[in-house]
Formats: sequence, C-alpha cells, structure tokens
Amino acid sequence: MNEAFLRACRGEATRPVPVWLMRQAGRYLPAYQEIREKVDFLTLCKTPRLAVEVSLQPVDILGVDAAIVFSDILIPVEAMGMGLEFHEGEGPVLEPPIRTERDLKGLHPIDPALDLPFVLETIRILKKELSNRVPLIGFSGAPFTLAAYMIEGGTSRSFVNTKRMMFGSPLLFFQLMELITDVTISYLRAQIRAGVQAIQIFDTWAGILTREDYDVYALPYVSRIFKALEGSGVAGIYFVYNGGHLIESMARSGADVIGLDWRIDIETAVSRLGRDVTLQGNLDPCVLFLPEEEIKARIDSVLRQGRKARAHIFNLGHGILPEIPYKKAKLMVDLIHELSA
Amino acid sequence: MNEAFLRACRGEATRPVPVWLMRQAGRYLPAYQEIREKVDFLTLCKTPRLAVEVSLQPVDILGVDAAIVFSDILIPVEAMGMGLEFHEGEGPVLEPPIRTERDLKGLHPIDPALDLPFVLETIRILKKELSNRVPLIGFSGAPFTLAAYMIEGGTSRSFVNTKRMMFGSPLLFFQLMELITDVTISYLRAQIRAGVQAIQIFDTWAGILTREDYDVYALPYVSRIFKALEGSGVAGIYFVYNGGHLIESMARSGADVIGLDWRIDIETAVSRLGRDVTLQGNLDPCVLFLPEEEIKARIDSVLRQGRKARAHIFNLGHGILPEIPYKKAKLMVDLIHELSA
Repeated sequence: MNEAFLRACRGEATRPVPVWLMRQAGRYLPAYQEIREKVDFLTLCKTPRLAVEVSLQPVDILGVDAAIVFSDILIPVEAMGMGLEFHEGEGPVLEPPIRTERDLKGLHPIDPALDLPFVLETIRILKKELSNRVPLIGFSGAPFTLAAYMIEGGTSRSFVNTKRMMFGSPLLFFQLMELITDVTISYLRAQIRAGVQAIQIFDTWAGILTREDYDVYALPYVSRIFKALEGSGVAGIYFVYNGGHLIESMARSGADVIGLDWRIDIETAVSRLGRDVTLQGNLDPCVLFLPEEEIKARIDSVLRQGRKARAHIFNLGHGILPEIPYKKAKLMVDLIHELSA
Repeated sequence: MNEAFLRACRGEATRPVPVWLMRQAGRYLPAYQEIREKVDFLTLCKTPRLAVEVSLQPVDILGVDAAIVFSDILIPVEAMGMGLEFHEGEGPVLEPPIRTERDLKGLHPIDPALDLPFVLETIRILKKELSNRVPLIGFSGAPFTLAAYMIEGGTSRSFVNTKRMMFGSPLLFFQLMELITDVTISYLRAQIRAGVQAIQIFDTWAGILTREDYDVYALPYVSRIFKALEGSGVAGIYFVYNGGHLIESMARSGADVIGLDWRIDIETAVSRLGRDVTLQGNLDPCVLFLPEEEIKARIDSVLRQGRKARAHIFNLGHGILPEIPYKKAKLMVDLIHELSA
C-alpha cells in the first residue's frame, strides 16, 4: 500500500509529500456529475454502491494518496432526530432548529450499526475495492460545528442564535454539546471498526469564536473525542476553517495532525506551534484559477513551508470548488508529487 | 466638544476611553425601528432629514463619543451605474454582476455633489444638529470589498467569482479596482468638505485573502486612498473584518487607527504591531447576550488590553446585532466610560 499519508500522520517526513483534497469526491469531477444527474446528494450518501464509486473517483482520476468516505457531516444529525434537506446552492436546512430544552428533548443518541448502516457498509466495500492501494479516511463534524448547524437550523452569517444560547443558556448549550460528543464518539468508533485508517474532524464554524471562548465552548468536546479514540490505532486530523487565531489551542486537542485553512501561512503556524507538529494544508482553492506556472510556484511555496514542520500532508485550505476544471486538480496532484519527490 | 474620540485618533491615550459602535444607528434601537416601519432602507439612506434623525439616535440614547453618517457602503456603487436592492434578511443584490470588460464599461466615475447630494446634505445638517457635541465620522467601503460585492452581485460564501477574476483576468480586476479607488477618493473628499472629522474605510471581505494576495490585490488601493486624504486634517480608520492575519499589512496602509474584529486579541495585535499603534475594537457583539457581570468582565479585559496600545477607541468587533436589547448597548457604553475613567 501507498503508506505516505499514514506515515505523515504519524509524524514522519515523507518524500514525496502525500496529498488528498477536501471534497475530492465532488462536483468538479465530470464522473461525479454524471452520477449526481441521476440521484440527489442525500440519496448518494445513503447508497453504498454509489458512495463507493464516487469515493474511488479521485483515487483513480487524480492519484491522491488517500481516499475519504463519501458522506456529509450532518448525516448523524439527521439520525439524532432532525429533519435534513439540501437545497441546491443554498446549503443544508435542519428542522426544527434546536433552541429550547424541549427541542433538545426531541433529539436522541444513535446506534451507528442500526441508524447509519449505509455509512459502515460504504466503508467495508471501499476497503475491499481499494485493495490496499491507499488508506481510507473517515470523518465527522466537530461538536461545535454540528451544534451551530443544529441551533441555527442551517448555515448563518452571524451565528447569533448559537452565541445567544452559549452566552444566555450555557447549561442547555453544554447539554447539547455532550449529546453530540457522545454521538460522534460512537459514530467514529463504528467507522474505525468498519475499517477506516484515519479520521478527520471538520470544525467549520469554530473560527467564529475568540480563543478564550473556543477554549471553553468548543475545545473540550473535541479533546474528549480524540481521547476516546486513543489506542484505536487510527490517526486523528483536526481541521478548523478560519481557525488561524486558534492554532495554539487546536494543538492541545489530542489530534495527530492540525489542518490549516489558506489564510494562515504554514510558516507562521510552525513559528507559533514549534517544529514538532504535523500540519495539513493549505493552498487557497482559488489558486487553481491562476496560470499553470503560477500554480506551480504557489505549490512550491506551500511545500517549502511544509518542510519546516515535523511532517506535512498537502491539502487545499478548504474544499475544492465545483468551478475548478478537474484537469487543474490533476495537474496540482502531479506537481505536488513531482516537486516533493 | 467631546474631543476624546479625535484625540484617540491622533494617538493620544484618553481617560475615559471613547466608544462608538459599528451600526450604532440600527435595528436594535426601537426609535430606529419606528422610522424603518415607514420607509425602506435605501429611502432612509437617501432622505437627509431621516438619515440625520437616525444618526443622532445613538448619540442621544447611548451617549457614544462619535456620530457616524447613516448610509451604506454600496451607495456609491449604485451611483457608478449598478442596480442596487436590499431584500430584508438577505443582504444586497447588485445587478448586473461585473464579470467582463463589457460589464466594466457599463460603470462610470461619479461626481459626489451631483450623484450623491443626499449624503453630503445629511452631513451638513448633522454637523449643525450635533452642534459640536461629538465628532462626525464619514465612511466608505474599501476597494476590494466593493469589487467583491460588484463581481459577485451581492454577498457570497466562497467569493469564487472575485478570485477567479483576480487570478484569471488580473488586468480586468485591476482596472475595476482603479475605478473604484478613484470614485472612493472623490467620495471621501466630498464628505470631508461637507464636514466629517474622521473617516472609516470598511474592508468586510479582504479577510478572505492570504496576506501575500492581500498585499497585491487589496492593500495598494487602500493605501492610495489614505495617501490622497493626507493633509485633509481628518483621521483615517481602517477596519478589516476577519483580518487578524493581515494586521502587519494593514498597519502599512497609512491609516491612523487600525480597527480589529473580535477574533484577534488586542494584546496579540499589540505584540505583533508594537506599542506605537492606535487600535479600535473589539468586543464580540454577542458578548452582550451574557449576564451583566460577565459583560462587565469582558469589557474590562478589552480595556486592559487597550492600555497596552498607544491609544484605544472602544468598539465592537463587528456591527451591533438587531437581536441585542438596546439597554444592554447603553449599559455597555456606560460601563466603558466608568471602567476607563
């Protein structure tokens, strides 16, 4: 098997540097589009045969060094009892928003084997189909991010309902966080039993918090998850979108790898965290609109900065965009491998 | 006149610390709501008698140390030839989005006296009505932020069209930036002639850029504006939302005061920029959902950090939210004055 990704997760500097892309199974790939013309997003998540197919596409087409299970961070939230819909181009709608004690009582823990069998089935088939070509990554949302989606009932610009609950009804907020954390631990354990070799926790919204608030309202729950997975043998990656001001705290989460968005230089991260850290990231996804020579220069800069860390896994600083021609993504993966060989 | 705000803008540490709030004339005030029940947002911006009334409300009701002209950063964009509408709760819609050379040709420079007489009239009446109680702040959007709105046709989550133009059609992008910069300079000069004593440039979207890109695609245009206003005798404030990773560059913009959003500690900003800097900010607006004692502790913390800078102007880290009871805003202003007396 191509072990580069797992070795880097364990803190080993590798040549070439491994690369995978957030949302690598996605709309920028014509092969993915073809399948989405026939089924909607949620159906795709819940149909193992198809979820396996789209998970394999970036491995076959781009040559990335890891596969990631095709799913969505809100899938377990639906299993907890919320209504979930995706409207094209508008993001998810979760109903009813969780704002009161009564709303919270409408939620329940999950049994992944019973409630989310399709995810586990997808993982089992994927493992076989990959036949040890590259490792398989499982994932979940971070508790704060899932709570924010649940409280807002979808995305938000100011997250005023989330912060109103945090600051105005902290006990209710913490109860919700506890429930989500328990669910996430059982969900990730089930993914590990089914065969994933690494997990990534996506914290899309924690960046709206000051570091002081992050340390109280978000970090302890992420830490509890990584703690619960200790001894499982899988690597843990923790990505916070727009989290440049939080990296010192993120480094205390118990994750093996810290995922950075594009706003913070890897060099800056290393100077703040010390060299004994494994970093993942962080090319601005929009850099792929640049001419080829400039893409190359930008990749080279990220790679050079990555060499200052203990180990480096290349990724974009956020999900790859549907607007990117997939040949540019392929070019990027090839350049990363070449330039770091 | 209450000179605290202007003295702080000039870099003088003051006691008490002056305070004003972004969006201080806004929906959280019942007196503002009353007027908005009768007229829509754009009509309010364009009716000097009413714009003056709502600009004065926070001075009268909260006792803030500066007034700011009631308007919107997109008002001059409409005057440049774009259609502008505000849909309640959805943000602005600008039409047609500027994506091509041809779209750009549809825009034109402005003559503020002819195209935006209502803004200048509002300023002249406000100056009289304020009768030197507190200074008056004028403002504009920063070129990058206005360009992003114009290219996207409104707000966006990924600003993919903006970055696609930046990276894919840089000449077109820079032409647009030049035009916006020229318009902004003439607009701010007209505001200064009409009587404003300070100006704030709002850069709502520059935070989506890496520092490397910010230095090329955004900063030079802001610098050109501050340069053009040199010698006018007005203080210049530069606020970047989500700009914690950019402050070293922002400090080179020529602004007298650097406005911070809530994500970056003032203490951290001082340690990165040195003590010889005047900072504005930066309480998380949602902190006003906390119980009174905790609001007080948070204000005290911001004030203590502010003392490490050369001078400090208190503000929220973003606009005050409609969901905040105005009595909490009044409490905050009183506490800031008391705790820093």
